[in-house]
Amino acid sequence: MDKERETLLAWRERMRQELDQVMAFWTEHSHDRVHGGFLTCLGQDGQVYDDLKYVWLQGRQVWMYCRLYRKIERFHRPELLDAAKAGGDFLLRHARVTPAEKKCAFVLTRDGSPVKVQRTIFSECFYTMAMDELWRATGDTCYRREALAMMEQLTHWVREDPSGLGRPQLPGATRAEPLAVPMMLLCLVEQFSEADAELATRYAELGDWCVHRILQHVQREGTAVLENVAEDGGELAGCLGRQQNPGHAMEAGWFLLSYASRKGDSKLQAHIIEKFLLLPFHSGWDPEHGGLFYFQDADGLCPTQLEWAMKLWWPHSEAMIAFLMGYSATGDPALLRLFCQVAEYTFRQFRDPKYGEWFGYLNREGKVALTIKGGPFKGCFHVPRCLAMCEEMLDALLNRASPAPRVPVQDPTTEPAR
Amino acid sequence: MDKERETLLAWRERMRQELDQVMAFWTEHSHDRVHGGFLTCLGQDGQVYDDLKYVWLQGRQVWMYCRLYRKIERFHRPELLDAAKAGGDFLLRHARVTPAEKKCAFVLTRDGSPVKVQRTIFSECFYTMAMDELWRATGDTCYRREALAMMEQLTHWVREDPSGLGRPQLPGATRAEPLAVPMMLLCLVEQFSEADAELATRYAELGDWCVHRILQHVQREGTAVLENVAEDGGELAGCLGRQQNPGHAMEAGWFLLSYASRKGDSKLQAHIIEKFLLLPFHSGWDPEHGGLFYFQDADGLCPTQLEWAMKLWWPHSEAMIAFLMGYSATGDPALLRLFCQVAEYTFRQFRDPKYGEWFGYLNREGKVALTIKGGPFKGCFHVPRCLAMCEEMLDALLNRASPAPRVPVQDPTTEPAR
Repeated sequence: MDKERETLLAWRERMRQELDQVMAFWTEHSHDRVHGGFLTCLGQDGQVYDDLKYVWLQGRQVWMYCRLYRKIERFHRPELLDAAKAGGDFLLRHARVTPAEKKCAFVLTRDGSPVKVQRTIFSECFYTMAMDELWRATGDTCYRREALAMMEQLTHWVREDPSGLGRPQLPGATRAEPLAVPMMLLCLVEQFSEADAELATRYAELGDWCVHRILQHVQREGTAVLENVAEDGGELAGCLGRQQNPGHAMEAGWFLLSYASRKGDSKLQAHIIEKFLLLPFHSGWDPEHGGLFYFQDADGLCPTQLEWAMKLWWPHSEAMIAFLMGYSATGDPALLRLFCQVAEYTFRQFRDPKYGEWFGYLNREGKVALTIKGGPFKGCFHVPRCLAMCEEMLDALLNRASPAPRVPVQDPTTEPAR
Repeated sequence: MDKERETLLAWRERMRQELDQVMAFWTEHSHDRVHGGFLTCLGQDGQVYDDLKYVWLQGRQVWMYCRLYRKIERFHRPELLDAAKAGGDFLLRHARVTPAEKKCAFVLTRDGSPVKVQRTIFSECFYTMAMDELWRATGDTCYRREALAMMEQLTHWVREDPSGLGRPQLPGATRAEPLAVPMMLLCLVEQFSEADAELATRYAELGDWCVHRILQHVQREGTAVLENVAEDGGELAGCLGRQQNPGHAMEAGWFLLSYASRKGDSKLQAHIIEKFLLLPFHSGWDPEHGGLFYFQDADGLCPTQLEWAMKLWWPHSEAMIAFLMGYSATGDPALLRLFCQVAEYTFRQFRDPKYGEWFGYLNREGKVALTIKGGPFKGCFHVPRCLAMCEEMLDALLNRASPAPRVPVQDPTTEPAR
């Protein structure tokens, strides 16, 4: 067995075991059996330390459960689907603040009263992902109708008129585009297009538009991915314009790689690997302590975010997906080596062998800074999505390299050796 | 000379020198000679890295310049007053978003266009402080009219109807009172009451109300100061209710000590020292690395703020003021020792002997995490206010202990010994 195959086999085993442990943490501790939905503010051992329900995390957990139920046989379990449906129904009942309108809350009380509304599109994006997956997992068309109606609203806010989001138009505010906006819309286009030729056609132009807008974030003659750019693709002034988020760039990288693969565009693929994988990795990896910085400044100045040098779990999850997807598409062993570098750091620093799931927030030196397993921005999403996608990609790589395990050719009439 | 007096003398000298160096940093680097106002996003060496103007910091710097101009003879310099007036005029022209209304922006472009509005009262509080000090420094009544009109608006928002702040009233949102709200209003009451019997009378009831509301933040049978409580004084659920901010409690502590001293209420004074100085200090001081934590959870759980264990400059400035004020009021040597403990840590860890001013953000271990000297929340305020107040309190203590230096009694007709 060659060295590369050995590496792939070892990582598939680690991913599979880790995914089982991570999902056990969430199924054991997070289900709200009274109101439906999920309690995601969980301490190191899974104890609930706050019962607020963040809509991003409700939608993401519903999506994750359905996705695993659909895609990985050992998760095709009714209790997962039941919890996802209870979460979806909680969202249907409570997420929209004034139900005639589509604006969703950012956070709800445990029983579903709105606490806070964000003037962005992200609650609605995760709501849409949840509804589409629920449709795919259950076949119930009420979820799909909801998903499509919200998608129409999202497209309207982003491409036509953002006024429904409630942000005041102030004369001094530049119309900045955060990378997350076209990235999330592209994610939704991919979501709807899976095995659905009609929707793939309907959203093809939107997908192209998203890709065009994401690529505009490559700035300074191809030397930097900037988190915020002007809508016309120019660089913005000040800290906002110089802000970089290496994990975000790599997350966008793997959405783009999916798109390029669907299009069979190998030139685009090479561009993405260079600009959205290698560039942010090399600028964002801490040469002293390892791990990816959270924020950087494109001029090398000090970022103003207090947490800029902290190591967060999700940029590492996204980098693992991106490098393994890049390797799957190209076979370039350098990308496999980078995957291993990130994965080794991540498994060593973020895992909690004692109680399961990962710590989310390390200091620059890699020490655990917050012991929580879930909170306002960390739930059942980035870790299991990464582990499941890596497991699937590793399966595919191993099957491709050698479609079936080689067994000695035997006379079918004789008893096989035990 | 006794040991205590030696300590006071040494610290007065350090405060005085440090104040001169800190003010030199701001006068050299921050004046916007084109548009008026101040550039406060300054790197370690004073270089401007962003030209956005945060209204809190504009108001605070105007206030600081006028206060020094009025109170400390060596700062009674026309260039300080000119810069303050240019800052005040910038605020008068640009701070209010739609000038018929009083709501101020949170951040402006360099030339004064509004970029962002916060749905809180703090921009307006610092605007009011700036205007009142400008009146006191210049005698120009247009500033005082503006200060009083804004104060009326602030009182209306806090005590009668907050709807003008623009926060939607969501059914799930508890009406939480952050400690900062009554604390800032009390600060304004003290500001207006200085040497003004008429305004002191007008705002007496408001001052009492603020103190009552601040004291409500002492919870759990006197064992914790909580950052957010219900308006009726009950503890709130979840992370919001358990949140503690030791630096904030101590800042409130010295506002309360001023109030108690004005009232001559020694019972209140003892209560404040116990609950707002000693309690947050002992729970908030990091036994391992020294310095005050930024956030804590009253149940000892992990806070969800990523920066909870970082050491910020301003809680340390506020603790120095609080302990020295407590010592001035009581003569308790334990309070002087605590002042020295905080001041030693602060001068050792936050000062930048190379370029002047202080670093604002250290990691838990005390290493500089952000090299900026000014940013969205750090400007010319906490450091010089602390240094100037400590210098004044040390002056008063030294004068009180021994009103004039003891010189040998000499025959006035002979030449004194040199």
